[in-house]
Amino acid sequence: MSAYDPDNIFAKILSGDIPSQTIFEDDAVKVIMDVMPQADGHALVIPKAPSRNLLDADAEGFSVLFATVQKIAIAAKQAFQADGVTVQQFNEAAGGQSVFHLHVHVIPRHEGVPLRGHAGGMADQDVLVEHAARYRAVLG
Amino acid sequence: MSAYDPDNIFAKILSGDIPSQTIFEDDAVKVIMDVMPQADGHALVIPKAPSRNLLDADAEGFSVLFATVQKIAIAAKQAFQADGVTVQQFNEAAGGQSVFHLHVHVIPRHEGVPLRGHAGGMADQDVLVEHAARYRAVLG
Repeated sequence: MSAYDPDNIFAKILSGDIPSQTIFEDDAVKVIMDVMPQADGHALVIPKAPSRNLLDADAEGFSVLFATVQKIAIAAKQAFQADGVTVQQFNEAAGGQSVFHLHVHVIPRHEGVPLRGHAGGMADQDVLVEHAARYRAVLG
Repeated sequence: MSAYDPDNIFAKILSGDIPSQTIFEDDAVKVIMDVMPQADGHALVIPKAPSRNLLDADAEGFSVLFATVQKIAIAAKQAFQADGVTVQQFNEAAGGQSVFHLHVHVIPRHEGVPLRGHAGGMADQDVLVEHAARYRAVLG
């Protein structure tokens, strides 16, 4: 496995060099809208500590990371009136990973609606703004 | 969301009423081979505390649960000489869940090999025995 490369898009989002639609942020984690959502409300939970993926991450941070994943999953269900939630975490390209900074996908799901392909293209920015606002309204 | 129903197959595996191929077990968690693997080495990390899924689980247990997921992901890569690892966690039927006791899928992946469908049928028991032994050998 390669070492962590700080020149990745999530590192640049965490540093503020690249903008994102932010749902939630604290000292340990930032939650943003996926710009290529596989369903409406597709969110990414990104720990601030640098690691490539789950294989090299410091387990000390998992308590906060996955408590946040849970909080976002519960909010996703409410904000998007979802029937379920799919959580995915990909490690290395063969595992489905495309950005090499640890992150967890939280995807609201509706009965009978398959996930859109990840190559489905960029979402409309106005839609992402509205979806992030829906999350924030639920999270209070 | 429905309440936790103790009459589910993972509860029966945890109680020993239904056998499983066990990879790892401690006070908090049991790790077994998925009997309908989407790839060779498909493992399930199951917390012993009863909850339906991530939406109703006690976050207090996440530190141990996901540290175990990490341990199994690292072992999966080594035991199956995998190029990557896919981690999935499904909530409610619409989210992909079919057994309603919280669990996390850990799936070794190889470049260019798509996941098999989950309805791909039961794996050969001898194969699962051998795969569980591979994990245990790596985990020591």
